[in-house]
Amino acid sequence: MFSFDQIQSRIEEGLRHLQYANPQQSLYEPVKYILSLGGKRVRPALVLMACNMYKDSVEEAVMPAMALEVFHNFTLLHDDLMDKAEKRRNKPTVHKVWNENTAILSGDAMLIFAYELLGKTETEYLGRILPLFTKTAAEICGGQQYDMEFESRMDVSEAEYLEMIRLKTAVLLACALQMGAIIGGASEQDCEKLYRFGVNIGLAFQLQDDLLDIYGNTDVFGKNIGGDILCNKKTYFLINALQQSRGEQQKELLHWLSETSFDPKEKIQAVIYIYNELRLREQTEAKIKEYFDVAVSLLSGLDVLPERKTVLVEVCSRLMNRKF
Amino acid sequence: MFSFDQIQSRIEEGLRHLQYANPQQSLYEPVKYILSLGGKRVRPALVLMACNMYKDSVEEAVMPAMALEVFHNFTLLHDDLMDKAEKRRNKPTVHKVWNENTAILSGDAMLIFAYELLGKTETEYLGRILPLFTKTAAEICGGQQYDMEFESRMDVSEAEYLEMIRLKTAVLLACALQMGAIIGGASEQDCEKLYRFGVNIGLAFQLQDDLLDIYGNTDVFGKNIGGDILCNKKTYFLINALQQSRGEQQKELLHWLSETSFDPKEKIQAVIYIYNELRLREQTEAKIKEYFDVAVSLLSGLDVLPERKTVLVEVCSRLMNRKF
Repeated sequence: MFSFDQIQSRIEEGLRHLQYANPQQSLYEPVKYILSLGGKRVRPALVLMACNMYKDSVEEAVMPAMALEVFHNFTLLHDDLMDKAEKRRNKPTVHKVWNENTAILSGDAMLIFAYELLGKTETEYLGRILPLFTKTAAEICGGQQYDMEFESRMDVSEAEYLEMIRLKTAVLLACALQMGAIIGGASEQDCEKLYRFGVNIGLAFQLQDDLLDIYGNTDVFGKNIGGDILCNKKTYFLINALQQSRGEQQKELLHWLSETSFDPKEKIQAVIYIYNELRLREQTEAKIKEYFDVAVSLLSGLDVLPERKTVLVEVCSRLMNRKF
Repeated sequence: MFSFDQIQSRIEEGLRHLQYANPQQSLYEPVKYILSLGGKRVRPALVLMACNMYKDSVEEAVMPAMALEVFHNFTLLHDDLMDKAEKRRNKPTVHKVWNENTAILSGDAMLIFAYELLGKTETEYLGRILPLFTKTAAEICGGQQYDMEFESRMDVSEAEYLEMIRLKTAVLLACALQMGAIIGGASEQDCEKLYRFGVNIGLAFQLQDDLLDIYGNTDVFGKNIGGDILCNKKTYFLINALQQSRGEQQKELLHWLSETSFDPKEKIQAVIYIYNELRLREQTEAKIKEYFDVAVSLLSGLDVLPERKTVLVEVCSRLMNRKF
């Protein structure tokens, strides 16, 4: 079994050795740039960890793992452009360093490059890996479409929000785990369980992300508190506050959403006050626990020895700050 | 053997029956829109015609043919956005009907959809079809990158221009023909020859397109004469005029390129006058003939009976307005 550190080194080594065969090197400068910004490499790590649960060598899983990391960064590149974001991991975004057209075209090249890497998977697995990836990629576009539509809607339901984050975030983690399991030679049942584990842990992650924007410790979390509140982002908190608030409280919330000039601290404080009145932190924590518990039970149902699960369990515990 | 009309009906039927399985239907409205704008469906037709040269049924080639048409329209969608084009086939472009973000995201979904369709190819061919498609798609991005870089360059060489149109236009025709040949069960040699036929006929088409913008008959060509000249498009004529003009003639050309307010007719007339002085029409026609002759000899070297080539020959003759 590989430790998480070993998994991570293997991924960084794989990323360093990516070959850009295309004649037009300038097309790939933005690709190299965004991949160099780092990140936790969660998705390729999940591929290799899932594979390693069933097989001692993870080498056959490296190419699909690279494909998922390239694909994930492609979505970040185009999402940043659509959101007109200025920064990504504290560095200027691709459309800021270059321009919008370069961001569009290099993103397209990156999506094609992800398929190129995926195509290097051993033929015996490709028949299952390829449709899984394509289905997931299409779902992620659907999730982004939902997310953009939510911006102009005030009546997003909890179910719609959960479906959006399932598509935009959770299915890629699920896909990563299932790909690793397929290459590891897991049974159909285990492949299915790992997929569902990924969906549930992904939903829990995203809700926790929403929660940490409000109640997180700045030092640990690395982002400023209240960022989502300041830009009226439709998070689990905001959509539930819009659904559950009444009378004066709702008027107050809508006032802060429509106000264009305000003191940031004051807006954050006022909105959090409403969230607290509605006990949304408790509701969210309960929902996170719900998903987390399903994930735990799916993991315990896998047909592998407990010691083969420790790395995956540790990584997920650390990310969730929770014990399994 | 199928006639060209039968090939075209099969393509339109295929396009009508495309299944958009994704949960987010609104993501696919722009996809349906751009596919409904029509066009000659040259790429899927080439797939089916090439297949039909070797096999009586073309059914196994229909999905990859659809994939190429969807992919081609994806490139049009994103290129129109990058070029800020207002019209496509006399209808407003996707980013005009919807908005820029929708054009980015629906384009991404369309590229993924092309891979979904391609993935439906029989497994026995997929191992050759998939890397061919991915290589071609990456080359096309490279061609578009070149094309965009050319806009701000005054020193583009003839060789660079030919490489750009090879990547941006010709390789997709070559890919279409080779895919059809692979599925038809052609020999390696015939697959290779059809690929090279596609590259040569593609280069000839594009040079003819450049020529028709200047010397075409408006009624037949369907576009207004001089469109490329008005927007300083780096065509085969302009890059050669920049390379070959000297002294007063070059000053005159550069004047028209930098002039921001002008009478359109006057600019077109003046630039064509320079093209005529440099005998660029004759040079271009010679180049077209060169590519066309190579294409003809490649086609005659195929290992099929002459009567199986007639449909492909007729279609190419009609498009080139030239006899084989």
